[in-house]
Amino acid sequence: MAIDNRPPGRASGLPDDELEVETDVERLEEILGQIEPIDETWSQRAQERLDDLTKPRGSLGRLEECARDYAAAARTLDPGDLRPRVVVFAADHGVTDEGVSAYPKEVTHQMVLNFLAGGAGINVLAAEAGAEVTIVDVGVAHDFGEQPGLIGRKVAPGTDNMVLGPAMTREQAVASILVGTDLAAEAAEAGCRLLAPGEMGIGNTTAASAVTAVLTGRPVAEVTGKGTGLDEPGLEHKIEVIQKAISVNKPDADDPLDVLHKVGGFELGAIAGLVLGAAAHKVPVVLDGFISTAGALIAHRLHPDAAGYMFAAHRSVEPGHRAALDDLAIKPLLDLGMRLGEGTGAALGFMLIRASLAVLNRMATFSSAGVTDRTD
Amino acid sequence: MAIDNRPPGRASGLPDDELEVETDVERLEEILGQIEPIDETWSQRAQERLDDLTKPRGSLGRLEECARDYAAAARTLDPGDLRPRVVVFAADHGVTDEGVSAYPKEVTHQMVLNFLAGGAGINVLAAEAGAEVTIVDVGVAHDFGEQPGLIGRKVAPGTDNMVLGPAMTREQAVASILVGTDLAAEAAEAGCRLLAPGEMGIGNTTAASAVTAVLTGRPVAEVTGKGTGLDEPGLEHKIEVIQKAISVNKPDADDPLDVLHKVGGFELGAIAGLVLGAAAHKVPVVLDGFISTAGALIAHRLHPDAAGYMFAAHRSVEPGHRAALDDLAIKPLLDLGMRLGEGTGAALGFMLIRASLAVLNRMATFSSAGVTDRTD
Repeated sequence: MAIDNRPPGRASGLPDDELEVETDVERLEEILGQIEPIDETWSQRAQERLDDLTKPRGSLGRLEECARDYAAAARTLDPGDLRPRVVVFAADHGVTDEGVSAYPKEVTHQMVLNFLAGGAGINVLAAEAGAEVTIVDVGVAHDFGEQPGLIGRKVAPGTDNMVLGPAMTREQAVASILVGTDLAAEAAEAGCRLLAPGEMGIGNTTAASAVTAVLTGRPVAEVTGKGTGLDEPGLEHKIEVIQKAISVNKPDADDPLDVLHKVGGFELGAIAGLVLGAAAHKVPVVLDGFISTAGALIAHRLHPDAAGYMFAAHRSVEPGHRAALDDLAIKPLLDLGMRLGEGTGAALGFMLIRASLAVLNRMATFSSAGVTDRTD
Repeated sequence: MAIDNRPPGRASGLPDDELEVETDVERLEEILGQIEPIDETWSQRAQERLDDLTKPRGSLGRLEECARDYAAAARTLDPGDLRPRVVVFAADHGVTDEGVSAYPKEVTHQMVLNFLAGGAGINVLAAEAGAEVTIVDVGVAHDFGEQPGLIGRKVAPGTDNMVLGPAMTREQAVASILVGTDLAAEAAEAGCRLLAPGEMGIGNTTAASAVTAVLTGRPVAEVTGKGTGLDEPGLEHKIEVIQKAISVNKPDADDPLDVLHKVGGFELGAIAGLVLGAAAHKVPVVLDGFISTAGALIAHRLHPDAAGYMFAAHRSVEPGHRAALDDLAIKPLLDLGMRLGEGTGAALGFMLIRASLAVLNRMATFSSAGVTDRTD
C-alpha cells in the first residue's frame, strides 16, 4: 500500500484518538490505501506507438505527453469512450462576513440554480467538450428543498468565519473529503475515464489562498489575488483577513486535515476527495484553476502518489495558482488568462486530452500507410 | 475598397505590364478589392453581451477575446453552425535536392495518400474538432491519376531548386494564390464560417524560412529551424542553402509576389490565397504553424487588412514562427510544443474558437438567471 511510503507514525495525518469519527477516518484510510503510483511502463508503450505514427517523432509536443501521461495513470493506451465528467462542488464561506469578495454571498446558491438550469459557463463549455456536469451541494448556506439534478451532500450550511476560529471541525473536514471520494467512485462506476473537480463558492479564493500559503510556505501576499474582481484596497484587505485567519488558527502545515478544517472550505475538501478517489480508481483527473489546485494540494499531502493522476488544464490569472502548480510540479496545458473557475478550464483541458488519445489510437503507422520513414 | 488604403502606384505589388497573365492578375486584384477592414462595432456588441453573462467580467480571458475578434471579422455574434474546414495544400520543393530535410521527397505524395485514407494527424485532429478536411494537390511532383477525394490544382510538379534560380515563375506565383482564393470561395459557398490552411510539402520549412527572412528582414539563422528533425550540422547546412537562395535570387522584400516566386512554394502561395479569399468573404481564418503563417505574411503584404481575419492557433517550436507572428501582431492561443503542420494546430484552435462562440451565445445573463450582479 502506498500509504506505507509516508513517515511512520503520521501515515496519513489522521488521528487515532477521535473515536467519534472513526468510521469516516477508516473509510478515508482505506481509499488512501488503494492509491498506487502511476505505471511508467504504460507511458513507454504509448511512446512506442506514438513513434510509429505517420509524423516526425515528437512533433505533436505536449499532446504526445498527454497521451503518455494518461496511459501511465489509466494503464491503457485506449480507454475507449472517455465519458468525461466535471463534478461541481458548491459551498459557502463564513469569511465572506469580512468583505473579501466582489459579489454577495447569495450568488453561491443562485449560481447553483444557474448550473441546474444549464446557463453557466461550465454548462456551456462542458457541452462543447462532450462532458457531463454533476452539481453537488457540499455546504451551501441555503435550503434548496427538493431540487431535481442537485446532489445534496451538505456537510453544513457554509463554513464558520475563519478569522474568528476554525472554518469547520476536523470531523467535517474528513466528511467533506468523503463527499468527493464518493462522487469519484460513482463516476468510475458509471464508466467515466476522465474527471475534473469544479467549484462554486463566493469567498473560496480566500480559503484557497489560505490553504496554499500554509501548505506551500509562501507568503500570503504572494498567493492572494483579486478573485472575482476586487480592487487594490480590496485585495489588501483580503490579504490581511487571510493573515489574521492563519495567525488565529495556527494551522499545522504538516497536517493537511488541520489546514483544511481551520482555513479551508467544504468544496476544497470535496475537491481533494475527488482527486484522491479518482487516483484510487486509476481515473486521470483534470485540475481547473486555483481553487481546484488548492484542493489538489490537500490531496497530494494526504497521498503524494495522487499527483501522478493530475493534469493541469490551464494557468489561471490568480497568483496562488502558479505557486500551487509549482508545488505539485505539473505544467498547465493552456494559458488563456481565465479566472472563472467552476471547472471551465478543465472542460477545455478535456478537449486536448481526448485529442491526444485520438492521435494515439487513430493515426496510421508508417508501415500501414506506406509512408517512408527517415533513415537515420 | 480597402485596396485604396495602400500606397498609390503600388496598390497590390502587382505589375501592370505582364499582359500574358492579365486575367489571373485581374482576378487577384478583384479579390483584394473585396477585402474590407474588420468591423470593431461588432467587437463592442460582443463585449456588451459578454459583460451581461453570469460570470465575473473578463473572467474567460482570451476566450472572450476570441469571441470579440470573431464577431468583428464575421459581422455576427452568432454564426450558427461553423462548419470549420481545413484546406490542406500539398506541393513539392526543388530545394530538397540540397538535402534540407530529414525525410525523402516522396513522403509528400505518400502523405497525400495518407490524408485521403484518413490516417494522418490532421485527419484525426480535424475529426476531433468536428471539422472537414479538403486535400489539394497544388504542386506535388507525382502523378496521382484519378484519385477520389483529391482536388487536382497542380500548378507544376514541384518548384525548381531555388538555389539555382527562382523557385517558380511570377505567373505561377499568381496561379498558386488563385488556387487558394478559389478554395476559400468554395468553402464560403458551402457555408464554412471558419477556415484554416494546412500543408504538406517535404522541404517547405526551407521555403517558409526564406520567405519569412525576406519579408520580416530578420537574419536567416534567426528564422530557420530543424523542420521535421534535422540535427545541428543539418540545420547549419539548411541556413547556408537559404542564404544562398536569397543571394542568388535577390527577392524584393517590398514585392510579395517577387518573394513568393523566387524563394516560396506553391502551397505557400495557395495558403496566402486561402487567407485572402477568406478575408474577402469575411470568414475568419485560423493559422496553424510556421508554414501557414509564412503564407499569411504574403497575404498580409498583398492586403494589410487581411490580418484582422487571422487567428493564430498555436506557437510552433520552429523559431521563424515567432518572427512571423510578431510581424503580424497576432498572439497564439496555444503553446504545446507542436511542429507537425498539416493544419493540426489549427484544428485545436477551432475547438477554442467554437467554445468562445458557445459562451457568447449560450450562457445565461445575470437577469435571465436571477443571479445578483456586483454592485460597484
